[in-house]
Amino acid sequence: MLEEESATEPMSRVARKERTRRAILDAALELSSESTMAALSLRQVAKQVGIVPTAFYRHFDSVEALGVALVAESFVSLRTMLRDIRQGDPALADIVDRSITILADHVHQQRAHFAFIARERAAGPPAVRRAIRDEIARFEHELAADLSRLPGTSVWSARDLEVLSNLIVTAMVATAEAILAADDPAAEQRLVEQAQLQLRMVLIGALSWHSDPAR
Amino acid sequence: MLEEESATEPMSRVARKERTRRAILDAALELSSESTMAALSLRQVAKQVGIVPTAFYRHFDSVEALGVALVAESFVSLRTMLRDIRQGDPALADIVDRSITILADHVHQQRAHFAFIARERAAGPPAVRRAIRDEIARFEHELAADLSRLPGTSVWSARDLEVLSNLIVTAMVATAEAILAADDPAAEQRLVEQAQLQLRMVLIGALSWHSDPAR
Repeated sequence: MLEEESATEPMSRVARKERTRRAILDAALELSSESTMAALSLRQVAKQVGIVPTAFYRHFDSVEALGVALVAESFVSLRTMLRDIRQGDPALADIVDRSITILADHVHQQRAHFAFIARERAAGPPAVRRAIRDEIARFEHELAADLSRLPGTSVWSARDLEVLSNLIVTAMVATAEAILAADDPAAEQRLVEQAQLQLRMVLIGALSWHSDPAR
Repeated sequence: MLEEESATEPMSRVARKERTRRAILDAALELSSESTMAALSLRQVAKQVGIVPTAFYRHFDSVEALGVALVAESFVSLRTMLRDIRQGDPALADIVDRSITILADHVHQQRAHFAFIARERAAGPPAVRRAIRDEIARFEHELAADLSRLPGTSVWSARDLEVLSNLIVTAMVATAEAILAADDPAAEQRLVEQAQLQLRMVLIGALSWHSDPAR
């Protein structure tokens, strides 16, 4: 139970407001985990946080807007992950293996957020689904830019780099979702090895690929 | 409104029962489309069909069991699709291009079922998610068996064929989901071409691949 107006210890207005916002985000993450944000009402969220519906509107315009904020928050942690992967300019083979173990680590650390994205991507309210699609598309563009700096990809057209990036991101998303569903460490280890093999297969394909100059 | 007991024209008991079963399946497909089966109550389904909850139990033990039946039904149409793709033993390059156009056709013809799978795969009740995972895994095994009959894959280990099949099926699932979300024919055409390119990239990678004999 959280009352913005009745905090027992002295707290600034801004800090109280931020605490309630956080409580709303956490309540939505928890409540939506049983089905999706699409089935979640503003009233349920407010009740869980212990505020009246009017107080909800001080933070978000709607449950959809709250969902979009959770998408933004989830992708902040995914960007941290990408920074971790890029760090130190490692060799290509190392990038492959490290990418997947870093992905698996982040799935564990940010489990609620990853589960939220997996769920809402397919079954969330339209605005939330769209926000997730846009964020994933942004990832693909960034990966395409990264790939274009690798030796050997100069024979690739920009379109083919985008298509390759889409395939890699698709495989990473599927791996994250499978790790979320994995029921024991051995199953997870098999998924990690499978994803590493897949990335190597794709990159070996990439190195043998020549873009069709007609496209 | 459907009353099993009061059909106006003479209808066999079996035909009436089948008609109600169909109405329950269709109601669940429609009602779950707003969020997921996980948020759907037996009462809502019964109300939509126009039967009492007790009558529901003549057909399914629970909403979860109804969801599992919808999974089975959806994959019947996916198997028809695979048969269409395999038909006539075409050349590899043709298989790639035809697979994706056949996939796109089936997404249009069976839109409600594809949307159901996309949604429930990530956000459905546990038994439904599990049933979908099992069906997709069965697809991967079948594809691995198909691939092992292609020339050039004899250097591949069984494990690598499974890993490759998983990647291909993942890309096909992502393509079907993206086609469902596409808002115009031009966007869909780009997705079809992207998927065709991806399959070619993966298969070119496959032909340059040699399994690690240590694994």
